[in-house]
Amino acid sequence: MLRILLLSAALILPAAAQEGRLPEAVTRTADQLMRTGLEDGTGYAVIEDLTTEVGARLAGSPSEARARQWAKARLEEMGFSNVRIEPFTLPFWSRAYEDARIIEPFPQRLEVTALGNSVGTEPGGVSGEVVRFETLDDLLEAPLDGSLEGRIVFVDENMTRTQDGSGYGQAVRKRSGAARAAGERGAVAALIRSVGTDRHRFPHTGAMSYGDVAARVPIAALSWPDAEQLQRALERGPVTVNLDIDVVTEEKAPSGNVLAEIPGQTDEIVLLGAHLDSWDLGTGAVDDGAGVGIVAAAGKLILDHVEETGERPLRTIRIVLFGAEEVGLLGAEAYAEAHADELPLHVVGAESDFGAGRIWQFETRFGESALPLGNQMARVLQPLGVARGGNEAYGGPDLTPMRRQGMPVVTLKQDGWDYFDLHHTANDTLDKIDPDDIAQNVAAYAAFAWMAANSEADFRGKATEEAAAGAQ
Amino acid sequence: MLRILLLSAALILPAAAQEGRLPEAVTRTADQLMRTGLEDGTGYAVIEDLTTEVGARLAGSPSEARARQWAKARLEEMGFSNVRIEPFTLPFWSRAYEDARIIEPFPQRLEVTALGNSVGTEPGGVSGEVVRFETLDDLLEAPLDGSLEGRIVFVDENMTRTQDGSGYGQAVRKRSGAARAAGERGAVAALIRSVGTDRHRFPHTGAMSYGDVAARVPIAALSWPDAEQLQRALERGPVTVNLDIDVVTEEKAPSGNVLAEIPGQTDEIVLLGAHLDSWDLGTGAVDDGAGVGIVAAAGKLILDHVEETGERPLRTIRIVLFGAEEVGLLGAEAYAEAHADELPLHVVGAESDFGAGRIWQFETRFGESALPLGNQMARVLQPLGVARGGNEAYGGPDLTPMRRQGMPVVTLKQDGWDYFDLHHTANDTLDKIDPDDIAQNVAAYAAFAWMAANSEADFRGKATEEAAAGAQ
Repeated sequence: MLRILLLSAALILPAAAQEGRLPEAVTRTADQLMRTGLEDGTGYAVIEDLTTEVGARLAGSPSEARARQWAKARLEEMGFSNVRIEPFTLPFWSRAYEDARIIEPFPQRLEVTALGNSVGTEPGGVSGEVVRFETLDDLLEAPLDGSLEGRIVFVDENMTRTQDGSGYGQAVRKRSGAARAAGERGAVAALIRSVGTDRHRFPHTGAMSYGDVAARVPIAALSWPDAEQLQRALERGPVTVNLDIDVVTEEKAPSGNVLAEIPGQTDEIVLLGAHLDSWDLGTGAVDDGAGVGIVAAAGKLILDHVEETGERPLRTIRIVLFGAEEVGLLGAEAYAEAHADELPLHVVGAESDFGAGRIWQFETRFGESALPLGNQMARVLQPLGVARGGNEAYGGPDLTPMRRQGMPVVTLKQDGWDYFDLHHTANDTLDKIDPDDIAQNVAAYAAFAWMAANSEADFRGKATEEAAAGAQ
Repeated sequence: MLRILLLSAALILPAAAQEGRLPEAVTRTADQLMRTGLEDGTGYAVIEDLTTEVGARLAGSPSEARARQWAKARLEEMGFSNVRIEPFTLPFWSRAYEDARIIEPFPQRLEVTALGNSVGTEPGGVSGEVVRFETLDDLLEAPLDGSLEGRIVFVDENMTRTQDGSGYGQAVRKRSGAARAAGERGAVAALIRSVGTDRHRFPHTGAMSYGDVAARVPIAALSWPDAEQLQRALERGPVTVNLDIDVVTEEKAPSGNVLAEIPGQTDEIVLLGAHLDSWDLGTGAVDDGAGVGIVAAAGKLILDHVEETGERPLRTIRIVLFGAEEVGLLGAEAYAEAHADELPLHVVGAESDFGAGRIWQFETRFGESALPLGNQMARVLQPLGVARGGNEAYGGPDLTPMRRQGMPVVTLKQDGWDYFDLHHTANDTLDKIDPDDIAQNVAAYAAFAWMAANSEADFRGKATEEAAAGAQ
């Protein structure tokens, strides 16, 4: 037993690490920020205001533009420095009309929503006999030589509910995969069971892409009850469905990232991210109004501390509210491009984009020498109910381009058990959020940001080496 | 303590009651039907087939007509006698288009659904500044002299969740009341917070009527999250909404009731009811596919018993699947009219129209002399988890015209805690139903019907006296 304890201690605190430890004054302030954060309603207030005063914020839409103006004004009002919008453009896609129905043998409407980037149908829609595939892999095994000519493909794959969201990676493959495989096999349209975990009559939208498949067929997601219904109808014999989708596209529409800073004493940067855009169906409360509220309020806690004590952080804390995340991380790419020169100054980043659940784990993606510091940070966060996770942190979708270029990241991992109940549905609204859970997130982000910004440590190593090795 | 026990015994078994007791053979069969029923999947299978093969069944629509043909075929196939459709006609109403949005100051869509019988708007809709009333009573207190000229009224009354559905009576007043009061005060439209208890983004439809109010303004229900959203927007200042509704009406459309019987040895009738129509948004699983499945399967259990034993019930058991319940009990009125002559032969009735929850209480509306028999029935049902309720049974909506004319009724009262989460929404689908709960209902209905049909008792008295006294 003693040996195990000593061994654990050795793993947590190798001798060389003592140098990289945070000064006690830093962890004391982190602890104070956590206490204050748990009692603070700013995070929830930001989410409430964004989702009420802007509502849904589809990438490239006038609503997303209003969200940028709203965010800029709000961040300035909160006292951040260098608040600015960094514009970029994107190809715009929006749904105009969507309808699906069984026309034979049991005429009735099905609840569907078009997937982002889907082509439309002819007016009046496209009809075909439905062929059901239990999984995307089953569809991919169907012969390529027009074996599904004239048919509507139905990929009925279920998604597994998990705390860490790991069911999503598997389930989301069908979002692009179903239309591509359907088109390649001569089908006229594709339907999928929604990528989601709820049992309500809400279809889940989300981006798809045709890649280099020439035959672009329209694709829509059925709500869970409608997928069950279609399956039951098919158990009774052949079923013909009509799918009618109209979409609006524009080659070039405006989007942008919103930046705000707490200036440090050096030009090194600790990045806190979230995304400002949302899908069009809900008001984007859990995806990702929550993240916007969390990182803005975490920054505000630190601003208040700076104002009270005059104690500026060593490194600059930069908040980035990315545009156009949902349609393919376009804001993230624009940011990585615009900030390519200063990318080496980004010492670490974290994005909040996994809903409004409590944080239960702190993961790092640090070089070996910084691991003890990661452990120390985890111990500071522990009173919030946060456990130390591994060193394979993902960091969040919008940090992907920067992580791939070597930026170290952490993940303040939220409980995502219910996240995919609401994700990309009309039901993603403010009332699903518990203010106390948001406060716990704010407390953790503020403490992490303060510690990272007041360390002199180099977190690089792992991500940097991977980037050099071309790892993704 | 002994006194209390003796008093209870006296209440349950007054001396005079012994004569009215059911023979042991009857209660033994009832008990056997319950045991068989609990293991039987027929009820759920009927609900599954109806909601899958027909789906939504709006009163007067082609779908309701298909439901009648479906039900006739199914009841014949199950072995019932005298299966027939009794047609009637009704004024038809259907939604064609509905949309609502905040246009100032926070442009965004609101999830609404038109209430049944609402007038439409001009194409492009009607716009007005919203005036919120906390309750219908608050609106009714507003002055009549055009005090709401050009406004859109928003009645934001909440519904209380209860096991017995008693919150509905209060909440549903606004469904007709809001449009009437709005029109009388010069408003251009009315919105209500849905009559429902869920927190999802499903507006609840339901019938309204203008009564004799001359100014008929369109009315729609907001989902719970959208009512919250509109309330939050109003907290921030004046809000203008556009409401756009298109409806289709026809003066005369076909509907009908479907009847089926287990012939008895006398011409007295025990009526088991449910309604075949549903609203158009969901597939009418809990409202009232469940009732259809429950009474059909209860009858089938008895049919099987008759076939096995050759033992016919004393009285005829008649199943009535009413048409056009949702739009104002039109099937019930048609039945009462068509069967006016034989109404005195209807010894007792029960309707299943409160969802798919378990039965927890057995209420009667019997004459005094039949109360001991009611107590005996309750004791037989007790193993199903059913408690004896009072003697004020409602009987179910479609039994209202008959009850008012003196027909005794019972209520096999279901747990309605979740019923108004789904009621009249798109989310009323099969997957919300637990087959075991349906089996418990089937068991109770079969046992009750067998006991009522094999008693020689006269249940009359209470309802009959009330009818004579003109009580409603």
